[in-house]
Amino acid sequence: MTDTRFDVVGIGNAIVDVLGHASDSFLDVNDLTKGAMTLIDADAAERIYSRMGPAVECSGGSAANTIAGLASLGGRGAFVGKVRDDQLGAVFGHDIRALGVHFETPAATDGPATARCLVFVTPDAQRTLQTYLGACVNLGPDDIDEDLVAAAKVTYLEGYLWDPPQAKEAFRKAARVAEQAGRQVALSLSDPFCVDRHRGDFLELVENHVDILFANEDEVMSLYQVADFDAALQRVRGHCQIAALTRSEKGAVIVAGDEVHVLDAEPVEKVVDTTGAGDSYAAGFLWGLTQGMDLATCGRLGGVVAAEIIGHMGARPDIPLRQLVAERMG
Amino acid sequence: MTDTRFDVVGIGNAIVDVLGHASDSFLDVNDLTKGAMTLIDADAAERIYSRMGPAVECSGGSAANTIAGLASLGGRGAFVGKVRDDQLGAVFGHDIRALGVHFETPAATDGPATARCLVFVTPDAQRTLQTYLGACVNLGPDDIDEDLVAAAKVTYLEGYLWDPPQAKEAFRKAARVAEQAGRQVALSLSDPFCVDRHRGDFLELVENHVDILFANEDEVMSLYQVADFDAALQRVRGHCQIAALTRSEKGAVIVAGDEVHVLDAEPVEKVVDTTGAGDSYAAGFLWGLTQGMDLATCGRLGGVVAAEIIGHMGARPDIPLRQLVAERMG
Repeated sequence: MTDTRFDVVGIGNAIVDVLGHASDSFLDVNDLTKGAMTLIDADAAERIYSRMGPAVECSGGSAANTIAGLASLGGRGAFVGKVRDDQLGAVFGHDIRALGVHFETPAATDGPATARCLVFVTPDAQRTLQTYLGACVNLGPDDIDEDLVAAAKVTYLEGYLWDPPQAKEAFRKAARVAEQAGRQVALSLSDPFCVDRHRGDFLELVENHVDILFANEDEVMSLYQVADFDAALQRVRGHCQIAALTRSEKGAVIVAGDEVHVLDAEPVEKVVDTTGAGDSYAAGFLWGLTQGMDLATCGRLGGVVAAEIIGHMGARPDIPLRQLVAERMG
Repeated sequence: MTDTRFDVVGIGNAIVDVLGHASDSFLDVNDLTKGAMTLIDADAAERIYSRMGPAVECSGGSAANTIAGLASLGGRGAFVGKVRDDQLGAVFGHDIRALGVHFETPAATDGPATARCLVFVTPDAQRTLQTYLGACVNLGPDDIDEDLVAAAKVTYLEGYLWDPPQAKEAFRKAARVAEQAGRQVALSLSDPFCVDRHRGDFLELVENHVDILFANEDEVMSLYQVADFDAALQRVRGHCQIAALTRSEKGAVIVAGDEVHVLDAEPVEKVVDTTGAGDSYAAGFLWGLTQGMDLATCGRLGGVVAAEIIGHMGARPDIPLRQLVAERMG
């Protein structure tokens, strides 16, 4: 295997989050499915935004959050995703580059605006996502730089990329290039509803192309259409080299062939906003993995990083994660 | 006095804050004056932003923060300020209207972009502001709706408005309309450096037009060019109907003719970011005043609201203030 310039290249939707508090009755009145990510068009985005309370804008996007977390841990990250050349696109580019991440996907000069995700955080710290994909629909295979993918130990793909039609082709190209270069391919299942939309494709990917799978309990159960976690665990075991399955306050299970780790959740003082919990778990895990750490340590790292993220509003770290991990992991 | 539709109309720079953490050495290397608000042009804004770490965007602006706080307390607020018809302008308009604030100043359709303030928060919770005024330079007397000003109990003006040249005329027009309608005029001195830039004008305003003055210790001492707080206190006493003078952890002094209140600071668990401390103090104070409360209660309300704001990143309330005040004030 040749030299790698990057630990992980993430490919995903380049999104700016618009975060606000909301009550459960607000979700009901506006017919929003709690806990889910729902795709909306530009008109619906305007309409729902106009009803939303005061908000804060933070760069987001699932794979982008993971790469941001990896970079904050000291990892060498790259990101591929499509913004427009507008103000929110500039914000997205600034925030990821400010962490030292390589981000050179050209911004679209026409077409829809930079993607936004309206994030409604309810008092139970659950988040409900309404995503306007905007410029993300213009991500295509041409945006995949083969040298970049070949130069990363891991290519990390978010399941949400299956939603914009062209991005799927970018996703497939990246996976192919990574495989040919002898690199690892990681996939996050993103969301149980996303799994519902694309189950057949995801099953094929997991069985044939994915080395490292990230899924939470609901997602992996949805993938195999089984009613309990253990049934899903038995199914996934044979397919991926590594599966990291997260279970919120019940901790996580890491399975890699015969090796199985059942890890407790890290303590959290107060859960404020679960946006980005899965993304940041993947950040910690992949950083550990690309540093050559054992799987149990990778799992703990994922838990430590996720615990930081859910303790405040927003999906990206509020403090340098390298420092946090040094304190927590000793 | 005729009926009032609004408790307070605020007139100020319409700004989106770009908030990030920074070290003291970052301020040194980039020649940023700690604790101050410095005006920068578009090129400098780009240059400094490119060196800034990951950030979060929140609507800001001094008087706008005050009106947002007033609305969150249940007060009837209006705001006059100039954005451009761009994405950050839409964010600013959304956030203030989402609080129920009347905001109908037409956005500029050409000229500079919506104003941004780069906010660097150091580990001591001090904030250093670099403001690109952008579209704010296009606020002028035509943007002052005389009926709106006449319909508000208090017209609240931020000292920063003295920076963009045309806005000064808008400021003077608003003060004149308010006086003629028998309303009160309030002024916030904004910043000791701002006082330095416009001392002569501010002295004339305070002596002849301002009924309610908000200033912190440094600002009021700068206004009168005296070296201790008490000297400034003795000077300001005769000029305004009411002066609310804030002193950070030393509390506040409210003076209105013979009436003087010396109030302790409200307890704060941890000071995270002092951005908006003065703005939110004015919000609490003016809400109390327009509800007919006594001055000591107004002062305490200011302190309670400011204590909430400095406990988190950003200059606007993170929770509905009406609820907070109900808990704290009993």
